Amino acid sequence: MPTFIEKLVKAATDEAPFFPDEPEGPTVVTAVPGPKSKDAVRRLDKVYDASAAVISVDYHKSYGNYIVDVDGNVMLDVYAQIASIPVGYNNPTLLKAATSPIMASALINRPAMGNFPQNDWASILETGLLKVAPKGMDQVYMALSGADANELAYKAAFIWKRQQERGQRDAEFTQEELESTMLNHQPGSPNLSIMSFKAAFHGRLFGSLSTTHSKPIHKLDIPAFDWPQCPFPAIRYPLEDHIEENKREEQNCLEEAEQIIKNYPSRVAAVIVEPIQSEGGDNHASPAFFQGLREITRRLKVLLIVDEVQTGVGATGRFWAHERWELSDPPDMVTFSKKAQTGGFYFGNPDIRPNKPYRLFNTWMGDPARAILFGAIIDEIERLDLVNNTAAVGDYLYNEIEKLANKYPGKFSNLRGKGEGTFIAFDNPRRDEFLALAKTHGINIGGCGASSVRLRPMLIFQKHHADILLGVLDKIAKEL
Amino acid sequence: MPTFIEKLVKAATDEAPFFPDEPEGPTVVTAVPGPKSKDAVRRLDKVYDASAAVISVDYHKSYGNYIVDVDGNVMLDVYAQIASIPVGYNNPTLLKAATSPIMASALINRPAMGNFPQNDWASILETGLLKVAPKGMDQVYMALSGADANELAYKAAFIWKRQQERGQRDAEFTQEELESTMLNHQPGSPNLSIMSFKAAFHGRLFGSLSTTHSKPIHKLDIPAFDWPQCPFPAIRYPLEDHIEENKREEQNCLEEAEQIIKNYPSRVAAVIVEPIQSEGGDNHASPAFFQGLREITRRLKVLLIVDEVQTGVGATGRFWAHERWELSDPPDMVTFSKKAQTGGFYFGNPDIRPNKPYRLFNTWMGDPARAILFGAIIDEIERLDLVNNTAAVGDYLYNEIEKLANKYPGKFSNLRGKGEGTFIAFDNPRRDEFLALAKTHGINIGGCGASSVRLRPMLIFQKHHADILLGVLDKIAKEL
Repeated sequence: MPTFIEKLVKAATDEAPFFPDEPEGPTVVTAVPGPKSKDAVRRLDKVYDASAAVISVDYHKSYGNYIVDVDGNVMLDVYAQIASIPVGYNNPTLLKAATSPIMASALINRPAMGNFPQNDWASILETGLLKVAPKGMDQVYMALSGADANELAYKAAFIWKRQQERGQRDAEFTQEELESTMLNHQPGSPNLSIMSFKAAFHGRLFGSLSTTHSKPIHKLDIPAFDWPQCPFPAIRYPLEDHIEENKREEQNCLEEAEQIIKNYPSRVAAVIVEPIQSEGGDNHASPAFFQGLREITRRLKVLLIVDEVQTGVGATGRFWAHERWELSDPPDMVTFSKKAQTGGFYFGNPDIRPNKPYRLFNTWMGDPARAILFGAIIDEIERLDLVNNTAAVGDYLYNEIEKLANKYPGKFSNLRGKGEGTFIAFDNPRRDEFLALAKTHGINIGGCGASSVRLRPMLIFQKHHADILLGVLDKIAKEL
Repeated sequence: MPTFIEKLVKAATDEAPFFPDEPEGPTVVTAVPGPKSKDAVRRLDKVYDASAAVISVDYHKSYGNYIVDVDGNVMLDVYAQIASIPVGYNNPTLLKAATSPIMASALINRPAMGNFPQNDWASILETGLLKVAPKGMDQVYMALSGADANELAYKAAFIWKRQQERGQRDAEFTQEELESTMLNHQPGSPNLSIMSFKAAFHGRLFGSLSTTHSKPIHKLDIPAFDWPQCPFPAIRYPLEDHIEENKREEQNCLEEAEQIIKNYPSRVAAVIVEPIQSEGGDNHASPAFFQGLREITRRLKVLLIVDEVQTGVGATGRFWAHERWELSDPPDMVTFSKKAQTGGFYFGNPDIRPNKPYRLFNTWMGDPARAILFGAIIDEIERLDLVNNTAAVGDYLYNEIEKLANKYPGKFSNLRGKGEGTFIAFDNPRRDEFLALAKTHGINIGGCGASSVRLRPMLIFQKHHADILLGVLDKIAKEL
């Protein structure tokens, strides 16, 4: 008699797998976390904060879409290290890059890239991450994480704004500016701000955290800048039943954005927005909303920063999620990290670059090792045509979950992500139990917002993986 | 007829070199930067801000203490990527670590370490960077850079401070706190601050930049928190001629620190201080000053964060520069990066760790690849006894420069760093010409503050390297 998982695996289609030696399906042999995970986490917690640890993982044994914990549980991973693993565990193409002489040198001879760049740095960028630069962008500043990338973009925006206010790019600083900034006071340290959206997540350093409004636990007890936040459209689902209502909601948010930019006491230098608010609950808006935001920011002379840290690098069925908006006038900066394994922001307008050296500067100015890896990831995405794969598998997955939503009313509500690749989410009133139950069935899955289940599979997630996931979703709907 | 450099090399003693196949000395074949460097920098600058680039470097050819640029110039590097290369270019021990299977896995399977830690993470920390933890410290939070490390320490300090103010570690948040923090307002986002010192450098993100007061160009046009800064002792040299005066100066600064902590409008959660203010001009203070700071912070219940980003990992002839203070009561946190190739902060008091999960959290929570490398660096430091090497070579170098200072009055003034390993600096009124001239003689050397030359050789810098450097310093003094 085949087990539940065996039946699911059998039901999966026989499409050609990208990685034929992947496990056939999940295998759960203990509770999750199992005893060995618990021991390992307890030991780790003595020296390193492991209070949020779920399982202890054997990454040497993990492969493709499957994560293997120290108890031997093999789980289909549709959370993928908080949406940051692009092309599978132990991907052979990445292994090759990781063991190349150029990688070894990047690891052991890490340059202060702003002062002493390595001679192949331009090539690494040009043949790697600049190949996939968003439309209208041909330059990059490198950072080490998503928060770091956003803060670098904010600094560029503030410097740009003051250059605009001074009226000429090369205006000299006044004595008052030079002296006041050393005291953290105006005018040298100006009263400028970044406008963000309610429920946004842009990172957890001090500037980025001031633009993050996902959950109180991310922010409590940390001083913040008094920067403005605008309501993000509260879209109702199913979309086809709320067309006019959603349109009005988006229009109201745009009007409020315009009022804030015009009237907020600290002058707004830039607006930052996620194509899909991810940590905040997978909140979507229409292309028309973002087109409106581009129009307003351009007209009011503030920069538009698109935060593609979680949405970027293929997951939405486009390389960059904001391609969906079909802007004729591109954003001013696009930030990236997570699946890129490094961080930074793209831009095109030369005025975004500060007028003097050492203004957007730090010791390392990126990490060449991680930038080389991003280049290899891009190669792998192209080799396997993974952006199209994600679009196709995402469509299939969305349609099948829609059937489950009809079959089990209230269990998969506010289903969203249609046409957005595998970047799919739904709400469940018993979300945390849902996530725990999924693990007992061998699916590692994450939540976001207050009651959302978010799907964040890797780009190598195929229809046969989707079938396994769908079988477990069906089972959970029955059990919960 | 031997050349100038050949004479210097010959004069160097025949002590056993750590790396016998290092170049014998510098070779300069073009102007610095040469034509190929200029071309490469121009090309790079089209896609990446290279406005502060000095030379384009061939890191595959660089070895040990010698950096090789694309024009074939071989320079003795006593700047070492802004003090961040510890054990030499293409160090064979590091190469072994960089090409190990554990490194490959760390590169291609980067975990979200807070949720899904790799099963050997505790071992990597325990057998690596925790082995060299400062006295009194047995835990670590990992970060990606020095600025990131400091900001993580600030967040820990703010969370700690509010826990202290609430009176019990596990006090629940009030509704008002939960709601106000989502708006960046008090009491949820409290009016707390970090006290730093004038001329300090702690990084360039928004929180760390608010504690950085090195140069206006680091800060201009970037909004900052209104956090307090205290004067750092302005010590006069030679020390033996200013004993009473320096003592009074340090006492005055301590008194001002106490007044700020007691009276500043935003409550001070922590004080951050560098053992030697590095970017700000290599400003030193006596152990008594730091002992006094420890006493004040302990008595007034604020945390003491020691920023060892530039001073740490052996350069001062101690593994951590603050060991020199011989505190019986250790600092609360010690931050590190640069030579560690990763970043983070050490601590011992369990109350520094937040009371709930997800408070000091982010996607990666460090980079295992760089943490593994730090472990290999520690091995190499132990194998070659490099901390003692740096102490001995530093003493030799200091004494020889002191002779130059006497020989050439005004050319090596305010010589400082006695007993601080190779962490040596002096002032020269034509500092920028000094640095440029050094390059033409094959020495890559950096400045700090307004008119200081700072020596930041690697830990593998030996007496024969010092002799080459000293010969060039003598020559420059004659020429300038």
